[in-house]
Amino acid sequence: VVRTIDWDGEAVVIVDQTLLPADEVLLRLREVDELAEAIRSLRVRGAMALGVAGGLGIALAATRAKERGDDPEAACRAAGATLAATRPTAVNLGRGIDLVLDALALGHDAVVAAAVDLLAADVEANRTIGRRGAALVAELAGRHDDLRLMTHCNAGGLAGVEWGTALGVVRAAHEDRMLAEVFSCETRPLLQGARLTAWELERMGVPYRVLTDSAGPVLVTSGRVDAVVVGADRIAANGDTANKVGTFSHALAAHRAGVPFLVAAPEMTIDATTPTGADIPIEERAEDEVLTLAGHRTAPPGARAWNPAFDVTPADLITAIVTERRVIRLDRGERPVS
Amino acid sequence: VVRTIDWDGEAVVIVDQTLLPADEVLLRLREVDELAEAIRSLRVRGAMALGVAGGLGIALAATRAKERGDDPEAACRAAGATLAATRPTAVNLGRGIDLVLDALALGHDAVVAAAVDLLAADVEANRTIGRRGAALVAELAGRHDDLRLMTHCNAGGLAGVEWGTALGVVRAAHEDRMLAEVFSCETRPLLQGARLTAWELERMGVPYRVLTDSAGPVLVTSGRVDAVVVGADRIAANGDTANKVGTFSHALAAHRAGVPFLVAAPEMTIDATTPTGADIPIEERAEDEVLTLAGHRTAPPGARAWNPAFDVTPADLITAIVTERRVIRLDRGERPVS
Repeated sequence: VVRTIDWDGEAVVIVDQTLLPADEVLLRLREVDELAEAIRSLRVRGAMALGVAGGLGIALAATRAKERGDDPEAACRAAGATLAATRPTAVNLGRGIDLVLDALALGHDAVVAAAVDLLAADVEANRTIGRRGAALVAELAGRHDDLRLMTHCNAGGLAGVEWGTALGVVRAAHEDRMLAEVFSCETRPLLQGARLTAWELERMGVPYRVLTDSAGPVLVTSGRVDAVVVGADRIAANGDTANKVGTFSHALAAHRAGVPFLVAAPEMTIDATTPTGADIPIEERAEDEVLTLAGHRTAPPGARAWNPAFDVTPADLITAIVTERRVIRLDRGERPVS
Repeated sequence: VVRTIDWDGEAVVIVDQTLLPADEVLLRLREVDELAEAIRSLRVRGAMALGVAGGLGIALAATRAKERGDDPEAACRAAGATLAATRPTAVNLGRGIDLVLDALALGHDAVVAAAVDLLAADVEANRTIGRRGAALVAELAGRHDDLRLMTHCNAGGLAGVEWGTALGVVRAAHEDRMLAEVFSCETRPLLQGARLTAWELERMGVPYRVLTDSAGPVLVTSGRVDAVVVGADRIAANGDTANKVGTFSHALAAHRAGVPFLVAAPEMTIDATTPTGADIPIEERAEDEVLTLAGHRTAPPGARAWNPAFDVTPADLITAIVTERRVIRLDRGERPVS
């Protein structure tokens, strides 16, 4: 398995996700600015991968500072500020940065070790989430086979190190032969669902279909899926969840139809300092992402766009949040932070 | 004003909507098969335009039969069968065909006159719908200025002859200086919102923004729109409304947020023989529409898609249906057919 993001001892190595599924290209990033550019342009993306990228970015700064004889603390803190500013919604990015900065006083090797620890911790947390989520899907559906799931965007191995959260649930369910089919919403404007999730499902060998985001709600209410499973970029203390824009629409439909709506995410995604969804900053991205398709302008020359990258699904529309430590049954009044 | 669809005395003339907004190309269609191809490939589309196209298709068959000395009745009935089969969801197509076939016994000139009457009737009905809808939006918002509307797909002049239903409401509101801004959901997979509605809004001079379909629900619940206004492809007797896929998601959001959700459509769109939305046939279109972007394959080679062209918005999510004859307040228990 190629890791989405890794540390080769001197540099951060990532799969360039903007080129998938057509091309599988590894990028070796030796400078913090290169990593920051890769994050901004979504070459590396996804909540968990961003957490790891934040941490590895500090290791990168510490390693370059050591080679060049620069002050490591100043270099690492500057790197942390640069990286944290790249994407405002995902809480994991800042968490990864802070966890590794905490090791600064212990020296270069401890900083790198703390960053590398994030890689293994992510894989381990994802596997646990996957198994627990698959068990919950089966429990809620009342059966262990012929299950149909829908997901949005990519909360797969590509959004973490190698396993995935929402797609970790799919992966675990597939290993246990529980799945009949998975529906992947394409996820405009950048098509993480059609490009990345489809690519992962193809490699898993799971039967799947791609659909427009706008068809997700009617799929959910048509009785053709047993559960919707998505990842998260930030979970507020009350359970309100920021995830890729479009998630909210599927949750509205699932709630109307009584279909379980599950959020799969590591504990690190829960932000106790954010009381509710209204307190989560929502990144707005470039208008051209919406106004062009595959490099071609589709809208008239004068057109403007509104391009929020995320939306917030209120806790009352979510059945449960599955983490590596617990299942939080929002539908029973449980909350991530009480 | 160039008409979306027209009759030049011998042939049907349409604007090729697949080429907008980049190119404005008129096509002159002299044969029923050419018209059928134009309908299937969405060169001419939109509920009202399809009704007119159905009627003009019969005039086309009658005119060619007269020139060639063929049996007019056989030619017109064959044309009706061919055209009716092109798109199953929009009720207007079959209505337009039937209305003109009714004139068969009166001879060629009566057939052509009945078809040409559909053009004027559509323009007149659209203008009335627009004025009535704009008044309703202002009434529901409690003010006559600074109004913000959201629409989905294209229920504009391009979906009819020259005025539009949902965009007729926008047009009337703009003429009365009531509008601050219009939001146009791009409408995947074929981007009628980003291409066609944006083009019409640009020409009207209304400030507007394009957004992904998946951002529509969060826009609606964010308090940034005063009403959602859409067209319809078929309205069941109970008020359930089939419209472009994605409409349902915006209605779910509007209902949650208490934002008025209006359907603007001619009486012809109401199908008394269809009791509820469950009885409306939903067209599924080619998988490639979803799996490719601007001619480029985006999903992996093995990917399959699910591509319903429409969804059904249940009557309980719709505030009112506005026709050229009446306002049907579904939120007060009124129904199209009682």
